Amino acid sequence: MRWAVLLAGGSGTRFWPLSTPENPKQLLPLAGSSSSAEDSVERLAGLIPRERTLVVAGPGLAGKLQERLKLPADNVLVEPRPASTAPALIWATWEAQQRDPSAEVLSLHTDWAVGDAAAFRRTADTALAIARRHDRLVTVGMVPSRPETGYGYIVPGTPLDDAARSVARFSEKPDAATALDLMAAGALWNSGLFAWTASRLLAEVASHTPEVAPALPALAEGDVGRFFREVTPISIDVGLLERSGAVAVVRGDFAWDDVGTWQALARVRPKDPGGNVVVGDAVLHDSQDCVVWSDRDPIVLYGVQEMVVVQANGRILVMPAERAASMKQLLDALPPAVRDITQ
Amino acid sequence: MRWAVLLAGGSGTRFWPLSTPENPKQLLPLAGSSSSAEDSVERLAGLIPRERTLVVAGPGLAGKLQERLKLPADNVLVEPRPASTAPALIWATWEAQQRDPSAEVLSLHTDWAVGDAAAFRRTADTALAIARRHDRLVTVGMVPSRPETGYGYIVPGTPLDDAARSVARFSEKPDAATALDLMAAGALWNSGLFAWTASRLLAEVASHTPEVAPALPALAEGDVGRFFREVTPISIDVGLLERSGAVAVVRGDFAWDDVGTWQALARVRPKDPGGNVVVGDAVLHDSQDCVVWSDRDPIVLYGVQEMVVVQANGRILVMPAERAASMKQLLDALPPAVRDITQ
Repeated sequence: MRWAVLLAGGSGTRFWPLSTPENPKQLLPLAGSSSSAEDSVERLAGLIPRERTLVVAGPGLAGKLQERLKLPADNVLVEPRPASTAPALIWATWEAQQRDPSAEVLSLHTDWAVGDAAAFRRTADTALAIARRHDRLVTVGMVPSRPETGYGYIVPGTPLDDAARSVARFSEKPDAATALDLMAAGALWNSGLFAWTASRLLAEVASHTPEVAPALPALAEGDVGRFFREVTPISIDVGLLERSGAVAVVRGDFAWDDVGTWQALARVRPKDPGGNVVVGDAVLHDSQDCVVWSDRDPIVLYGVQEMVVVQANGRILVMPAERAASMKQLLDALPPAVRDITQ
Repeated sequence: MRWAVLLAGGSGTRFWPLSTPENPKQLLPLAGSSSSAEDSVERLAGLIPRERTLVVAGPGLAGKLQERLKLPADNVLVEPRPASTAPALIWATWEAQQRDPSAEVLSLHTDWAVGDAAAFRRTADTALAIARRHDRLVTVGMVPSRPETGYGYIVPGTPLDDAARSVARFSEKPDAATALDLMAAGALWNSGLFAWTASRLLAEVASHTPEVAPALPALAEGDVGRFFREVTPISIDVGLLERSGAVAVVRGDFAWDDVGTWQALARVRPKDPGGNVVVGDAVLHDSQDCVVWSDRDPIVLYGVQEMVVVQANGRILVMPAERAASMKQLLDALPPAVRDITQ
């Protein structure tokens, strides 16, 4: 049967001061009126039920996610420490296989905005079918809408059938010129939407992922703590997909965004005629291409271009849109009394 | 004896959302820790006592000013309607003469920031002395520090003595090129700091100011309401000083600022090494030449240049510094629910 594994990591820094460690971006209504974590589960409706949806989260968020996503308590896997995506996905896949030896797994993240849920489900359905039919690890490559330098790219190889190709190579976070070349050559964004059978995934891990494979007996012994102590943190892309020969790529041709920065709201929310995205009480006079978010006071912008202005959790942030990608640098520089938000 | 007349008009729009009709800029601690209205009275200490200090204000502010400035109740003259500076100054001068037939009047505004109070007093003392000695209306012309286009200029004429000259002409709010020419030619800012004897002022009004002179009998009859109904609003500059031959100018060589915009805080407050003026809780990271004012939340600026960011009275305002001079245009465009602040 089909299972979904949702990764719900993230430290909540990119949407400071709205996001906090206790309320990271996947729990915030960034792209619409409900959170991306809730949207992520709802989007699977008809494809994979909640009973077969697993979430991997840190101890601070597990309870909140279980409640918000209306999942069985057993379906929230509490990661004792963050160890990148390979240990989390391998553990969750192992767990699905324990419950269902023939499990097929769809892996996704809880912080995505997706334009067309039906197209998403059709693509996920195809990816799961391909994973079974060709016994491969299937990546869904998103058709790029811009030469994004913050994502990895997948260069498709030879056709496996009408819907899937092999993977020629992966290209991690290219520079701008390379990103343009990749787009022109038909490369796709590596979204993190994957499909595999549990048996193939675990077989590939045994062959290719020495950072994780030796720790698997700890899971068999029911000792998740030891598993996470023994693994070396590594991403599923670097630790497995780029090493395995048994990968494939399916095209995902729908709007997809990981809403990684304040500036990304301009891609996933409706804009006013001036190109501004406004959430909350605000008046923009003679202002263009701004992102404004207020959780309390009316915000007035006058003659402002390409700025992000946020009031949230008793803090006010003002920055040019281009700085939204380097929030970590700001937060490292802030005094704790300003940076740390207690809710 | 010497009397001071302080004009305390102003609608409180330029420092929105901090200033309001009930709390206009002269009552706010814009330039330091006390308000400019309080500073204006304190600055006269040793020159003119509170007993001979009159304030002209609208009905909404009269009580507050009397209390804050610790003035005798009789010394607050309540203007029934705003009518520019000529009616207010003529009324207050008439009032001083009623109490003291030989009154000499120093006229000033309550919203000035002055760098050197002792230099201010020396100049005021000189202006009052010149007004008596030469029986003229004396303007104090400030040595300009920039080619300001928002002020009027005084072009000095022939010397009257060591300290005073006649006035060749007045030049109202010149364009930028003209302002540079005026500075180069030794013209001075018309600050609104004036000195005259009550008798000379009222004689000149009788000769030159038909907008006000015919209404003076109403004052003699004790009917201030009728006086203000009968006058035509006009400034003292246009209505009298530019028309009279009996004017003189004394140089005021001290830092003087009418703190007319948010941007002006950068002239009258200490700056950090990045050229920023910060009042309240704020962190500026990689930001230059900004004015930041917070009355509640920490404000964080990241990579911001030449912007004004204000949180006050439950509103947040963000604008480039150059927009600070056109606040009225913004306020005209704001919906009343955002613009109008009830405190």
